[in-house]
Amino acid sequence: MGGARTKRMPRAVREQQMLDAAVQIFGRRGYMVASMDEIAELAGVSKPLVYLYLNSKEDLFTACIRREAAALTEAVRAGVRPDLPADRRLWDGLLAFFAHTAEHPEAWSVLHLHARTHGEPFAAEVAAMRAEIVAFVTRLVAIAAREAHQDPDLPEDEVAGLAEALVGAAESLATWANATPGVTARQTAGTMMNFAWAGLGNLMAGQRWVPEPT
Amino acid sequence: MGGARTKRMPRAVREQQMLDAAVQIFGRRGYMVASMDEIAELAGVSKPLVYLYLNSKEDLFTACIRREAAALTEAVRAGVRPDLPADRRLWDGLLAFFAHTAEHPEAWSVLHLHARTHGEPFAAEVAAMRAEIVAFVTRLVAIAAREAHQDPDLPEDEVAGLAEALVGAAESLATWANATPGVTARQTAGTMMNFAWAGLGNLMAGQRWVPEPT
Repeated sequence: MGGARTKRMPRAVREQQMLDAAVQIFGRRGYMVASMDEIAELAGVSKPLVYLYLNSKEDLFTACIRREAAALTEAVRAGVRPDLPADRRLWDGLLAFFAHTAEHPEAWSVLHLHARTHGEPFAAEVAAMRAEIVAFVTRLVAIAAREAHQDPDLPEDEVAGLAEALVGAAESLATWANATPGVTARQTAGTMMNFAWAGLGNLMAGQRWVPEPT
Repeated sequence: MGGARTKRMPRAVREQQMLDAAVQIFGRRGYMVASMDEIAELAGVSKPLVYLYLNSKEDLFTACIRREAAALTEAVRAGVRPDLPADRRLWDGLLAFFAHTAEHPEAWSVLHLHARTHGEPFAAEVAAMRAEIVAFVTRLVAIAAREAHQDPDLPEDEVAGLAEALVGAAESLATWANATPGVTARQTAGTMMNFAWAGLGNLMAGQRWVPEPT
């Protein structure tokens, strides 16, 4: 690690550059095919320096997942103002989510596709992030139901199920939007609101969909 | 393959028994950890016979994915009668889907979790099945929009997005329901209809959710 070869730069800054490069390469190629040579080259550092800082390919991938999971959940949280009505909070949260996944398609690939594709410990990192987002959405749905003065409240299982459906729909839409040219984050959030809110909205107002007797 | 060791039974029947056993073991343990010894034991045959019939662990896993993907799409198709109204078709399709995933939790794990967890060629098999289901749901949404005499029709991108959202929500709910004791397929389908149909229903009736100006 001669001072002549690597410019003097704080370790934390260099690490972030390595992670930036790693997310790009892992996101485009997947974990197995991605090479540490390519990551080092894109980061503009030597391969031994990547190993020195981030230890192994596995640790580097785990660091990518953690950083990108934290960035995504933070983006959603930052987008939502708790003082606004429930439909506005959902819209803002969805807009923040789809804007982030559209701006960081490789990060979304790492989280949604590649991390799950390689089993433990990566899948567990993503499952933890997903559980956090589901809990956030569950609270949002429960609060919306309370605001709507539902009496009796929605059963706990139904609230949990609605949150799971919402998160699954958003994941699926984000992946579809990133693969479909010309679809904006705003359009995607609008599709999701038309799909989910008007439905949830009816439910909150006590208007359930009921099957006709067979 | 002495006649004394393996009872005389048509090859096709024995193959199905091997696949039954393989789906159970792959679904419970995942592809990597599952052992051919365990699969052969559960199927009540010798390990060499499994290799003779199904060639390799990879081919056996692929055969499981194909069989279970076909069974799931067939269950959904068989549940839907094209002469009924759109909401009834969606309800029937969802009920068939959640009943099938609840009755065959290991098969659902193979398709949704484990097949994607091990990259190509398995992920491609599941992607093909998913594309078929998305196309089926896309037609259903497009027909529902036409029935609702929407003029102008929903844009193609929005129909495709709604179908992706619906499939993603159903996948997420099926996995959640199988992990949550006491939730029935009928309850899950009801949650999904409350989430999706009343929302889609409003949309079909021309009632979009519109964000207030910021």
